Amino acid sequence: MAQTPEAGSVGSVVTSTVRLFTAEEPLQLEQGGTLGPVDVAYETYGTLSPRADNAVFVCHALTGDAHAAGYHEGAKRPGWWDNLIGPGKPLDTDRFFVISANLIGGCQGSTGPSSVDPATDEVYGLDFPLLRMRDLVAVHRALTRHLGVHRLLAALGGSLGGMQVLQWALDYPDEVANALVIAASSRLTAQNIAFSAVARRAIMADPRFASGRYAAEGVNPDTGLSIARMMAHITYLSEDALTEKFGRQPHPERREPGFGIDFAVESYLDHQGQAFLERFDALSYLYLTRVMDYFDPFAEPGALDAVRASPVNWLVLSFATDWRFGTDHSRRIVRTLERAGQPVSFREIPSTWGHDSFLLAVEPYHATLRAFLDRALAEVAR
Amino acid sequence: MAQTPEAGSVGSVVTSTVRLFTAEEPLQLEQGGTLGPVDVAYETYGTLSPRADNAVFVCHALTGDAHAAGYHEGAKRPGWWDNLIGPGKPLDTDRFFVISANLIGGCQGSTGPSSVDPATDEVYGLDFPLLRMRDLVAVHRALTRHLGVHRLLAALGGSLGGMQVLQWALDYPDEVANALVIAASSRLTAQNIAFSAVARRAIMADPRFASGRYAAEGVNPDTGLSIARMMAHITYLSEDALTEKFGRQPHPERREPGFGIDFAVESYLDHQGQAFLERFDALSYLYLTRVMDYFDPFAEPGALDAVRASPVNWLVLSFATDWRFGTDHSRRIVRTLERAGQPVSFREIPSTWGHDSFLLAVEPYHATLRAFLDRALAEVAR
Repeated sequence: MAQTPEAGSVGSVVTSTVRLFTAEEPLQLEQGGTLGPVDVAYETYGTLSPRADNAVFVCHALTGDAHAAGYHEGAKRPGWWDNLIGPGKPLDTDRFFVISANLIGGCQGSTGPSSVDPATDEVYGLDFPLLRMRDLVAVHRALTRHLGVHRLLAALGGSLGGMQVLQWALDYPDEVANALVIAASSRLTAQNIAFSAVARRAIMADPRFASGRYAAEGVNPDTGLSIARMMAHITYLSEDALTEKFGRQPHPERREPGFGIDFAVESYLDHQGQAFLERFDALSYLYLTRVMDYFDPFAEPGALDAVRASPVNWLVLSFATDWRFGTDHSRRIVRTLERAGQPVSFREIPSTWGHDSFLLAVEPYHATLRAFLDRALAEVAR
Repeated sequence: MAQTPEAGSVGSVVTSTVRLFTAEEPLQLEQGGTLGPVDVAYETYGTLSPRADNAVFVCHALTGDAHAAGYHEGAKRPGWWDNLIGPGKPLDTDRFFVISANLIGGCQGSTGPSSVDPATDEVYGLDFPLLRMRDLVAVHRALTRHLGVHRLLAALGGSLGGMQVLQWALDYPDEVANALVIAASSRLTAQNIAFSAVARRAIMADPRFASGRYAAEGVNPDTGLSIARMMAHITYLSEDALTEKFGRQPHPERREPGFGIDFAVESYLDHQGQAFLERFDALSYLYLTRVMDYFDPFAEPGALDAVRASPVNWLVLSFATDWRFGTDHSRRIVRTLERAGQPVSFREIPSTWGHDSFLLAVEPYHATLRAFLDRALAEVAR
C-alpha cells in the first residue's frame, strides 16, 4: 500500500541543476562582460498545465535557496516557504505549477562567487563579476523557458525576491501576468545600505576571509559571517517581536554576569549567527547585498515604458512593523506604478513580526495572497 | 592687553584628576568586591557660589569624557557639549558651576579596565570588576563632595548619562534638587541589548582583542572596535537623517563598483569607525555597555521609596525620531515617577536627528533646558 502523502505538503522533493549558459554561449551581464557556464539549481512543485499557463515563479530573499517547499530526503524541516506552497495552500500545487530557483551569485547550487571557474579550475572568489538585478532575472527567465513556460501566471517574492519580481515585470511585462512584490523596495535607503555595509565590513575584516580566497586556503570567515548575520537578523524582526520573544529574560544558562551570553536575546542571536554558517557563503553575502544596494529601477529613463504599453497586475504588500523595507518603501512602488497606469493592489498587513513576516503564515497575508492568486488563475481559465 | 575670550565659550580648560578612593579605602562595589585606587578625571566651568548651591553635574554618554566644554590647549574642536555650556548658554557658566567627569570604567582619565592595577602593575583587562550604575554614581558623588558640593542644584545627562542621573536622583533625592533625564531609558529592550551584544561580539572576536590583554601584547582590536562603532552609529541617527545627509549619493571617490566604499553613507560610517579608535577603548566599550544592559532600577523593590519621601523635580526629554531610546522609554520613566508622586515635566522634542539630537543645539530642546534650569536657579535664590 502506498504511503499517504502528508496533507498540505508537496512531500519529497529533490533539487535539480541545469546548465543554462555555457562558456561558449555565456550570460551577457548588465554591466558588461560575460559569465559562463551558469548552472542553476531549482525545484518545481505541482504540474504544468497543457497550455503552460499556470506557472508561478517564486523568488527567494537574500539568504534563500531553491528549496522552497516539501522535504529533502531525511530532512526534518521543510523548505523555507512550505507554509505557502502545497496542496490546498495559498500557492496550491494542485492547481499551480511552482518554480523555485537559487539565484546566481548564491551558494546553494547555482553558479556563484564560490563556484569553481572552469577556465582556471579555481574558485572565482572576488574575480566573480559584479551582478545587477537584471542578471538575476536573465537567468531565471532562461530557466522558465527551459521548463517550457513562456509566460508566467505570476512571479512572487519577498525582500530581495520582491525586488527581482519588480525588475522582471518592468522589463518583460508580456511574460509576467501578475507580479507580487512583498516587503520589498525599489531603492534602498542610506540606512539600509549602512547596515549591509557594516555586515560586509565584518566579513571582509575577518582574517580568514583571506581576500576572498578562503576556500583555496581551507578556511572560512565564520566569525565575520556570523556577526553579519547577527546584525542583519536584528533588522529582520520588529522591536516589539524581540520584546515579546525575549524581553530582558536572562539566558537560562547564565551563571555570573559577564561578556558572554547573559540574556536570552543574546543566545538567540548567537544561534542565528552559528546556524547561518552551515548554509551560507561569505562571498555570496557580499555579491547579493551589493545587488540590492545598486537596485534603483525607477531612476532609469524609460524604466516604465514597457509596462505602460503592456500593464501587469500588481500586488504590493508591506508589513506594518517591518522597519527594513517598511510601508514607505511599498508606497513608493505603488505610487510610481500607478502613475504609469498600472492596476495595483496594495495592502499593509498587520503583523507584529517585522520584515520576517513575509516568511510566516500570517493569516491576513496568506488570505490576501490566496485571493489574488485565485483571481489570477480564474482570469486565465476564462 | 589680555585676549578677549570668545563670546559664549568657557575658553581654555584643562582636565584634572583626583584620587577619590585608595587601595586601603576602596570603592565598595554594588555587586560585591571593591575597587581601589579610583582616580577620576574631571573639569569644572563657572564658579561655585558661596552657599555651594549652583552646582550642576553633567553626566556623559557611553563614549563621552570629562571634556564637555571649552578648548584644550591647541585643540580645534571644543568639548562635546560646548553648544550647551558657556556664558549665556542654557547651562550658563556665569551663573552655574558645572562639573563634568569621566565615568569609571571609561578610558579618558578615570580608572577603567585599561588602567594599570597597582597591585599587579598590569592592565586590569577582563580582571576589572563588572560595574553597575550605582558604582558610577558612587564615584561621581564622591567627586561632588570633594568639590565642596553636598547638594546638586541639578544633574543632567543624555543616553547613559540620563540613566546615571535617574539612578542618582532615585537613591539620593536630597542631594539632587533637579534631575534632567534626556533620551534615556529605565531599562533596555531586547533590541537595545541585541545591538550592544553584536558590538561586543565584534570586539571580542577580533584576534587582536587577545582575551582583553591587547595592551600587554602591544596590539589593539581596531577592526572589531570600529565595526562596533559603525553599527552603533547607525542607531544614533534617524533613518530620515541618514537619508537627508547621504541618501543614495555615490562616494565622490568611487571609481568602479565593488565591495569598498561605493556610497557616501559608507564613507561616513568608515570615518566614524576610524575616528573612534583615536578616542575610545575596547574594554571600556564592553564594561559600559553591560552597565546599560543590566540597568533596571524600577524593577528593584523599594526603588521609589526615597523619592516618595523626598521628591525631586524631574525633567524628562525624548526626541521624536530617536529609535534607540525613543519616547516610549521616556514615557515609561515619566509614568513610573508620576505614580511615585514626583513632579515631572515631560517633552517630546521635535528633531529629525534621532538619538544624537541630545548632543545638538536643537532649538526647542535648548529652550526647554534653559527654562528649566533658570527656574531651578530662581527657586534657590528665593
